[in-house]
Amino acid sequence: MVLTMAETQEFLVPLEQYLKEGIHIGTKFKTKYMENFIYKVRNDGLMILNVQEIDKRLKIAINLLSQYKPEEVIIVCRRENGWKAVRAFSRITGVRAFAGRYPPGILTNPNLETFTEAKLMLITDPWQDKNVIKDALNVGIPVIALCDTNNECNNIDLVVPCNNKGKRSLGLAYWILARGYLGSLGVEMKEGIEEFTDTE
Amino acid sequence: MVLTMAETQEFLVPLEQYLKEGIHIGTKFKTKYMENFIYKVRNDGLMILNVQEIDKRLKIAINLLSQYKPEEVIIVCRRENGWKAVRAFSRITGVRAFAGRYPPGILTNPNLETFTEAKLMLITDPWQDKNVIKDALNVGIPVIALCDTNNECNNIDLVVPCNNKGKRSLGLAYWILARGYLGSLGVEMKEGIEEFTDTE
Repeated sequence: MVLTMAETQEFLVPLEQYLKEGIHIGTKFKTKYMENFIYKVRNDGLMILNVQEIDKRLKIAINLLSQYKPEEVIIVCRRENGWKAVRAFSRITGVRAFAGRYPPGILTNPNLETFTEAKLMLITDPWQDKNVIKDALNVGIPVIALCDTNNECNNIDLVVPCNNKGKRSLGLAYWILARGYLGSLGVEMKEGIEEFTDTE
Repeated sequence: MVLTMAETQEFLVPLEQYLKEGIHIGTKFKTKYMENFIYKVRNDGLMILNVQEIDKRLKIAINLLSQYKPEEVIIVCRRENGWKAVRAFSRITGVRAFAGRYPPGILTNPNLETFTEAKLMLITDPWQDKNVIKDALNVGIPVIALCDTNNECNNIDLVVPCNNKGKRSLGLAYWILARGYLGSLGVEMKEGIEEFTDTE
């Protein structure tokens, strides 16, 4: 990969680690929302995301997250490949995570016993987690979303471009976010990336 | 205006004030980037922005700004209607403002005497301030942009939808941002909106 721009940008993890976990490997489809994050199309048709943009947006996401207390944030991940990652994020930071099915109405229906409030939402895939985006819109809270090349980004306040399909890519993304968020709380994260994903 | 959503959302200023300064009045043109922020089309063809989205994004912008020291941020505004506002922002917060012409190369050419560094950029219009977006991309720093219905939002990290043409709308937007930013520094802003715009 030729770095033509932002050569002074200091990455959150070494470039090699981003590439090794495939955080930049998109899909064969692109939406208008994601085209600005696409660096090139590989010979086999896979869209490749711009790593500098991934890194920059992860930093912005950390900055935004760090404005909120753990109890004010919820993370949602319907995709099974992200369950280990969001559960580790939750265990380590105290942020509530919904890995798997997101219970309908918990943010919008005060009559439910499970009713809860949140001030910021972090989601793994705008397609799979579309119901929760609607709820966030209804209660007027910001949404940060990991978005792959094929995602529509309606009603997403901060798009973090990345491969949101693979276990290792999701593990790395959530590990970086958890480490940054903990750091903003003045805590050094001890957990390695193996807590967030299956390593080879 | 019928508030169908987010009725629990607490606004940064009373809804009436947003409407009075015309922060929600867009243009007759819309881009694909901005269509999600548009509430309706008025009979005379003007696109009206969703005030809840304006308010939510202003809050996110404040949260993001508050992660940076004043000397790390620059504000750019080529449009004359925003000069009074960005100059007031600069005077009150200590953030550097470029009202009018943006000197080329100051972020990208270390050989210039005027070379400077920044970690976050706030711009008034992606069209008028397009050169500075290129510079931000080159040095890899995030860009927050006030965006009207007719703006393209390539390479903007955080879009704040609003009327970025009118003096009073820009005055209100920058006054809210300055007040929020100062608040995050633990300072209560004493300056009224008349410092940011010509009031009637």
